[in-house]
Amino acid sequence: MLEIPVLRKVLEKNDQAAQENRALFDQHGIRCINLLGGAGCGKTALLEGVLPRIGPHVACAVLEGDLATTNDARRIAAMDVPVIQLLTEGSCHLSAVHVQHALRKLDLPRLELLVIENVGNPVCPANFDLGEHLRIAVLSIAEGDDKPEKYPLLFRDADLIVLTKCDLLPHVSFDMERAIGLLRRVNPHAAILQTGRRVESGFEAVAAWLMSKVNSVQGGHVRLAEAVP
Amino acid sequence: MLEIPVLRKVLEKNDQAAQENRALFDQHGIRCINLLGGAGCGKTALLEGVLPRIGPHVACAVLEGDLATTNDARRIAAMDVPVIQLLTEGSCHLSAVHVQHALRKLDLPRLELLVIENVGNPVCPANFDLGEHLRIAVLSIAEGDDKPEKYPLLFRDADLIVLTKCDLLPHVSFDMERAIGLLRRVNPHAAILQTGRRVESGFEAVAAWLMSKVNSVQGGHVRLAEAVP
Repeated sequence: MLEIPVLRKVLEKNDQAAQENRALFDQHGIRCINLLGGAGCGKTALLEGVLPRIGPHVACAVLEGDLATTNDARRIAAMDVPVIQLLTEGSCHLSAVHVQHALRKLDLPRLELLVIENVGNPVCPANFDLGEHLRIAVLSIAEGDDKPEKYPLLFRDADLIVLTKCDLLPHVSFDMERAIGLLRRVNPHAAILQTGRRVESGFEAVAAWLMSKVNSVQGGHVRLAEAVP
Repeated sequence: MLEIPVLRKVLEKNDQAAQENRALFDQHGIRCINLLGGAGCGKTALLEGVLPRIGPHVACAVLEGDLATTNDARRIAAMDVPVIQLLTEGSCHLSAVHVQHALRKLDLPRLELLVIENVGNPVCPANFDLGEHLRIAVLSIAEGDDKPEKYPLLFRDADLIVLTKCDLLPHVSFDMERAIGLLRRVNPHAAILQTGRRVESGFEAVAAWLMSKVNSVQGGHVRLAEAVP
């Protein structure tokens, strides 16, 4: 009885900030993506595979959520993509308020796509709306094919689900058909794509999906065929 | 300002239950282990490798913490080990109160070792004392060698750190020396062991470590050489 009303207040405060963030994104024509997944599932590696493919066509920026270190932000910065590191200092998820603070430091008028890489955690971040338009949920095949059933919240509201580290398929016991069946039960509508270190076509497909969601591209300013050579 | 006093109250309530749990374990001479790690890092597989080795010598039971499904409990039950599934229904961690409820259903007087497998999450569970005596933190090498630095809370208070899925070493970019160096910076004292599907000696080493922590074994009732053939 103690926790519930307070959690509601925290969520209300978060949701208000999320709405303000979304309004700001819409005002500037920015598409915002919340990138979610467990620790070490390959969220940053996904961005390393995808951002160089869309960077020449779309003005991107990244917010990196982590408990500690600026490791991931440095990996993004190495690709010449504007990045801000958000250190949650022990908190297990990003909140819309974290994002709100970061937005003040971005050049919003020139931005078309903002990707927010959440804290590596398959549970809590899914409960917090950051003001994003779309969600990408990541599952590494090294985690096991039963995870869609065990962490349904992560996948339920995703618009795209990316199965990463697929080059490990011969070395782990992961039944792709089973995993996709379980994902479909939790989320019948999301796109599902596969990537891996030696699965270059996967990064291209994710880049194409992302490009298709950017406002300027939807308006015809960049054609998809140009964007993903 | 809203969240902090409430979190303190939640933690106070948890810590009181944790102390009661620990007193109950001590009264019955039970050694209790909190097994922590991210989603799909191989906590249940570790128990599958280790429990058959100690089961003939020590009376074990397992509490399985999950958000959803009884998948993991069924894997433990298949080894004829008493198991109780704790479904947190959306909560990202087990609390000492969850454990307290489960203890009523266990035959405590005959028990010597209780392993609590926490929710797969490298962040929140580490903040909640369940009344355990010892912690085991698990890192799958598929997660990457930078994780000790990114999730220090998980490893900081561990008595044993297990690096799992080491059979994948040739297929992933994981620098074992770097990982162990970072673990040592976060936690200079924990034992560090390696396991994998084809690293049988790893399971034996973890079994030996666990056996050495059991009260009856420490008292000489079972010798280690017998326990881990």
